[in-house]
Amino acid sequence: MTDMTQSQRDHRDMANAIAALSMDAVQRANSGHPGMPMGMADAATVLFSKFLKFDPSDPDWADRDRFILSAGHGSMLIYSLLHLTGYKAVTMKEIKNFRQLGSITAGHPEYGHVPGVETTTGPLGQGIANAVGFALAERHMNARYGDGLVDHHTYVIAGDGCLMEGISQEAISLAGHLGLNRLIVLWDDNNITIDGPVSLSDSTHQKKRFEACGWKVIEIDGHNPQQVASALRRARKSDKPTLIACKTTIGKGAPTKAGLNKAHGAPLGDDEIAGARAAIGWEHVPFHIPDHVYKLWKRPGRRGRKAHREWRSRLQASDHQADFERAMAGDLNGGWLDSFQDYKDRIAVEQPSLATRAASGKALGPLTEALTDMISGSADLEGSNKTKTPATSNEIQAGKYGGRYINYGIREHGMAAAMNGMALHGGILPYSGLFMVFMDYCRPSVRLAGLMQKRVIYVATHDSIGVGEDGPTHQPVEHLASLRSMPNVYTYRPADAVETAECWELAVQRSDAPSIMALTRQSVPAVRDDASKNWCERGGYVLRPGEGADDIILIGTGSEVHLCVEAAKRLQEEGISARVVSIPCMDVFMEQDANYITSVLGQSLPKVAVEAGVRQGWDALIGREGTFIGMDGFGASAPGAHLFVHFGITADAVYNAAKAKLNG
Amino acid sequence: MTDMTQSQRDHRDMANAIAALSMDAVQRANSGHPGMPMGMADAATVLFSKFLKFDPSDPDWADRDRFILSAGHGSMLIYSLLHLTGYKAVTMKEIKNFRQLGSITAGHPEYGHVPGVETTTGPLGQGIANAVGFALAERHMNARYGDGLVDHHTYVIAGDGCLMEGISQEAISLAGHLGLNRLIVLWDDNNITIDGPVSLSDSTHQKKRFEACGWKVIEIDGHNPQQVASALRRARKSDKPTLIACKTTIGKGAPTKAGLNKAHGAPLGDDEIAGARAAIGWEHVPFHIPDHVYKLWKRPGRRGRKAHREWRSRLQASDHQADFERAMAGDLNGGWLDSFQDYKDRIAVEQPSLATRAASGKALGPLTEALTDMISGSADLEGSNKTKTPATSNEIQAGKYGGRYINYGIREHGMAAAMNGMALHGGILPYSGLFMVFMDYCRPSVRLAGLMQKRVIYVATHDSIGVGEDGPTHQPVEHLASLRSMPNVYTYRPADAVETAECWELAVQRSDAPSIMALTRQSVPAVRDDASKNWCERGGYVLRPGEGADDIILIGTGSEVHLCVEAAKRLQEEGISARVVSIPCMDVFMEQDANYITSVLGQSLPKVAVEAGVRQGWDALIGREGTFIGMDGFGASAPGAHLFVHFGITADAVYNAAKAKLNG
Repeated sequence: MTDMTQSQRDHRDMANAIAALSMDAVQRANSGHPGMPMGMADAATVLFSKFLKFDPSDPDWADRDRFILSAGHGSMLIYSLLHLTGYKAVTMKEIKNFRQLGSITAGHPEYGHVPGVETTTGPLGQGIANAVGFALAERHMNARYGDGLVDHHTYVIAGDGCLMEGISQEAISLAGHLGLNRLIVLWDDNNITIDGPVSLSDSTHQKKRFEACGWKVIEIDGHNPQQVASALRRARKSDKPTLIACKTTIGKGAPTKAGLNKAHGAPLGDDEIAGARAAIGWEHVPFHIPDHVYKLWKRPGRRGRKAHREWRSRLQASDHQADFERAMAGDLNGGWLDSFQDYKDRIAVEQPSLATRAASGKALGPLTEALTDMISGSADLEGSNKTKTPATSNEIQAGKYGGRYINYGIREHGMAAAMNGMALHGGILPYSGLFMVFMDYCRPSVRLAGLMQKRVIYVATHDSIGVGEDGPTHQPVEHLASLRSMPNVYTYRPADAVETAECWELAVQRSDAPSIMALTRQSVPAVRDDASKNWCERGGYVLRPGEGADDIILIGTGSEVHLCVEAAKRLQEEGISARVVSIPCMDVFMEQDANYITSVLGQSLPKVAVEAGVRQGWDALIGREGTFIGMDGFGASAPGAHLFVHFGITADAVYNAAKAKLNG
Repeated sequence: MTDMTQSQRDHRDMANAIAALSMDAVQRANSGHPGMPMGMADAATVLFSKFLKFDPSDPDWADRDRFILSAGHGSMLIYSLLHLTGYKAVTMKEIKNFRQLGSITAGHPEYGHVPGVETTTGPLGQGIANAVGFALAERHMNARYGDGLVDHHTYVIAGDGCLMEGISQEAISLAGHLGLNRLIVLWDDNNITIDGPVSLSDSTHQKKRFEACGWKVIEIDGHNPQQVASALRRARKSDKPTLIACKTTIGKGAPTKAGLNKAHGAPLGDDEIAGARAAIGWEHVPFHIPDHVYKLWKRPGRRGRKAHREWRSRLQASDHQADFERAMAGDLNGGWLDSFQDYKDRIAVEQPSLATRAASGKALGPLTEALTDMISGSADLEGSNKTKTPATSNEIQAGKYGGRYINYGIREHGMAAAMNGMALHGGILPYSGLFMVFMDYCRPSVRLAGLMQKRVIYVATHDSIGVGEDGPTHQPVEHLASLRSMPNVYTYRPADAVETAECWELAVQRSDAPSIMALTRQSVPAVRDDASKNWCERGGYVLRPGEGADDIILIGTGSEVHLCVEAAKRLQEEGISARVVSIPCMDVFMEQDANYITSVLGQSLPKVAVEAGVRQGWDALIGREGTFIGMDGFGASAPGAHLFVHFGITADAVYNAAKAKLNG
C-alpha cells in the first residue's frame, strides 16, 4: 500500500469508512445486509465524491442530482454516505441505532424518514423504475424552466434482483424509448443473489438486453476508481440512458464470506469483521471515523453548496421563480378552484347521463388547464381512459419533454412506479389511466405511493362487471375491497358527473396520499343537481333524505347509487321512507367522527347496500345484519347491462331487499 | 389467383375461414377484436394444419401439444380454429353467440369453459408466462415417464402487449435459463397497439432482447405460409426456446383499417367487412363455411387421432400407466394421509415452539415424500421460505428436468404464472415460496389461478410486522384482507405446527382452487396438543372453550392465537370464562352454514379479535361492536418483538380489551 498515491489513499479511506460503518451497524443491529455496501463502497465513493451534486445543508435543493438505492437492502450504504457527507440528521447515534424502533435509519431506506433518501426502496425493481420518473421529471421541468434552474442527473444503484424483476423491463424499455440520457444506473454486478450465484436462476446477457432497449452499456471493474470515474464521465455524455455494469465482489474483504451469498443478508460476525478490517486496511474501532476521513468526505458537500448558491442566484434572477417554487412545493396554481367550480355548476345543471370515465375526461379539461403541473398518460388505453385533454394533448417524446401526455405503453407497473418518481421529484402532479382490473399489475408501486404519502392519481376505468363482453379477466370484483384495504390509499368511486368532479377536486388537493378514481365504462344517470357544496368531501353523505322519519337506508357507490334512488322512489310510492346514501370514498368516510357517520347511516335503521363488487369491508357500514347486493364471485362475458340483471344488481333487487327487510 | 397451386389455394381458404368467422362474429356481437385473428390467420393455419398435435375428439389427451393464445383478446382466432378443426362443443351457434351470456365463446378464452383452451388469457403477458410452466411441466413429465408418454410442444401466440408487460421478461429469462426448447412463441409483430403504432411507446429491439435471454429468434413474413412452416421446423430443432417474429398486417384485407389500430378492438363495420371479403377472396355469406373448407380443416385432427391411438397403445404397454393417469388426473398418491397423520400426531405430542414457516418446512418433508407430483421452488428465498425438502432437493436445471426444485429467481410474477402453467398442464402440484408482502407482485397470476380453479400453493412467509427490522416495505398489513377478498383463493394462516400441518393437508386436497399459506417469520408457541381431528377443516373452531358459560370470545389467527390463549388464562384466574377461537382460514369459515358459525362465534357474546393486519373483513365475524386489535397503518423497522409491543398487539392488549368490553 506504500506505493499508493495520496489520491488513492484518500479514496481507499473514504470507501473503507462506508464498508466499516456498514459492517459495524449490521453487526450491532444483529440484522441487515453488509455485503452490498462493502461491494459497492468503491463505486459509490467515486459517484458521491466526484460527481453527485448535492448540498447536505439543504437536502431538498431542487436542482440536486437524485441518487436512488434501488437495491434498498444495502441501506447502510446510503446511511453511511449521508452521515459521512454531513447530513446533520444522520448522526453516528442514528447509525448505531440502525434498524431500531424510532431511529431514522430503518431497515430499508424510507423516504420522509431521513433526508437524502429520495424514494423508499426495498421491494426490488421499484427504485430503478422510480428513477425513470425522476429522469423524465427532470427533463420535463427543464423544458418548462430552462437549464439555469433544472439541470441534474438521476443516479441509481441496482442489484441483480432489480434487474430480474419484470418491472425493470418496463422501466428500461420506457427509459430507452424516451431517450432519458440523464439516467445512469450503476449495476452491482456481483453475481450473487440470496440463494447463491446468479447462475442458479438466470443467464441473461444484461449488456445485450439493455442495448436492445436503447441503452448505452459500459462494463467496468467496480473496485477500480479510475474505471468508475471514466464510466460516469462517458455516461454523462451519452445521448442514451446508461447502464454501468460494475463487476464487484459482494462483502469485499470478508475473509471467508466475500464473493458468496453468505455476505448478503446477515451480520458477518466479529471474526469475519476483524478479518475484513485487516484485509481492507481499516484499523479503527467500530463506529470510529478518523477526522481526516471526515474531512475528505466534507469536500463534495462544499462543492455542492457552491453550486447551490450559484443556482439560487439564477433562481432569484428568473421570471419563473414564483411558479417554479410553487410547483416544487406541490402547491396548486392559484385560482384553479374558481374555474373548476364553474365547471361543476355547469355540469350540475346539465345533468348528463354519462359514463363516469367520460365525466372524468370532461372534468380533466378545466382541471388540467388550470393545474399546470398535471402530467397525463395511459397504459395504451387513451381512448378508453379519457385521460388526454386539450391542455395535455402534446405528447412527451424522446428529445421533446415539454409535453404533458405520456404514452406509457402496456406497462402498468412501470407507469405507476414512474409516476411515483415524478411525484417524488417534485413539480409534477402525475395521473394516468388503466383498466381497473389491472391495478393488480401495479399494486406494489401503489402501495409505495401510500407508504411514501405521495400524490399520484390512477384513473382506473372499467370498474365493475359493467365492463361487459371482455369478461371476468377484465372485470374487477374484489378490487374495490383490495384497494381500500391498503393504508393511506384513497379509492374514489363517484356516482355521476358531479360526484366525479368533486372526487377529482379532492384527489388533486390530497397532497399526502395517492388516489384511485374508480370509473365506469357504462353510462350512468345523473343523481346530483347541485354542486354548490362538495358533498364527497367526507367520503359519504345523504344523497336523498326520505320523506319524514326514515324506515330504511339504501347505500350505494358509483354506478349503483342510481339503483338506490330508483328503489327509493318506488318505496316512497308505497309510503316507505327510504334514505339514499352515497359513499364516493369509503376510506374517507370511515375516517369521519362517529357522530357524522351515525348522522349518515342512522343508529339502528335497517340497511341495504349495493356495490358491484364483493362484500368485504361493507359489514363495517351495514353490520352483519345488513343486506348486501353485489358480487360473490367472478363476473362473466356478456353485454354489461345483461350482467347486472344476471347477477341481480338492479333497482328491483334493491327494492325487493328493502321490502324483505321491512317485512322480515 | 389462378396461378396458385392447389396447396396454396387450400391454405388461403383455410386461413380465410378464420378471418371471416372472426370478422363476422365480432360484428354480430358488436364487440371484440377482429384485427389480430385476421392478421395471424395465416400463421395459425400453418401451425394448426401442419404441426400442432391434437385430437379434437379428446381435447384432454395428455400428450397433445399445448396451444396458448397469450394475446387473448384475439379469442375469435382460437374459437374459429376449434370450430373448424372439429371440437364438437364449439358449434357454429356458439360462434354466433360470441361474447353473449351463457355461451362458451367468452370475450377472452376461458379455461374450463371451452375444450381446447389451455389457459385463460386476456391479461397481457400471462399466457406467455404460463407457457413457461407448460413447457417445463412437459420436460419434467418426460423425465419421469419417458419419450413414449410425454413428447409434445408448447406453442404460443403473443402480441406486442404481451412482450411489453414486465412479466414477459421474467418468463423469457426463466425459459432461456432453463433451456426450454419445446417452447415456441409466434409473435404477432404487427407494429400496432390500441393507441396506435408501437413506436408511440416502445423502441425495443425484440430480437436482441430475446437473444440476450437465451432464445433463438427467427424473423419471417407472417403471411407467407412457407416461411411460417420453415420457421416452425427450425424452431422444433432448436436447443433453445424460439421466438418466431411474424411480421403481419393487423386486420389484413380490411380496405381502410388494415395495418391500423382501428382494426384492433372494435367491429369493422359492414362496409369494411365486405371490402375485406373481396380483398382476401372469400365470397361466402357470414358464418357460412363451404364443405371443402371444413374437409381441409378436418385433416389435422385425423392425423392427431392416429397419433393419439398409437400413444394409447404405448401407455397401455407401459409400467407407468397407473401412476401417469393418476398424476394427470390430479389425484394424490395413495396412502399419503396415513404417513402424514403419523407426522401430525408426532408434532402434536412434541408441541414445538416454532416459526410456522419452519413448521411448514417440517410438514413438507413427509408430504413431498408421499406426494410425488409436488414440485417445489422459491423466488430466491429458499432458506427463508423453507420450501426445499429432502424429497425435492434435486434441482431442475437446463437439460435436467427430473428434479423437483425450481430456482425461480427474483421473479415472483413469472413464478406464479409458471405454476399456473404447470398446474394446467397436469401431473404436477406446484408450490413455491416468497415473502408474503410480495404476493402483490404476482397478484394478477394468483387471480387467474382462482378464476381457473387450479391447485397452486403459495408459501407466503414473513406474514406480518413479525418480519421486524426489514420494515414496512416488507411487512404485510393489508395482505390478509386483500388476498381474502379474491374469489376462489384460500388464505390459510395457521397458529402453530399442528395447524400448519392441517392447513397443508387441506391445501393439497383442495383440487379446485389455489391456496396461500401465510406463515410467520418468528417463533410461536404450540397451541394444539392433539391432531386426531383436522380442526382447520371448517376454517375456524373453538380452540379452547371457556370454563362454564362463556362471558366473552377471543378470536385470533396465526401468530396471534396464542395471545388469546394467554389472555384467556389470565381472565380465567379472575373467574371470567373466555372462549378462544382460532380462524386458520377465514375464507373457508365464512362458507360454513350459519349454525356452525354461530356455534363457534356464539349468538351475542362480546368479542375481541386480534390479527396483526388491518380490520377490513373482520366486521363480518365480530360486528361493528366487536373490538379489533391489529394494524391501522403501515409497520415500522425494529425487531419484531418490539413492534408487537409498539403496535399494541399483545396478550395484555387482548386481556385489557376483554376487561373493557365486560366492564363497558
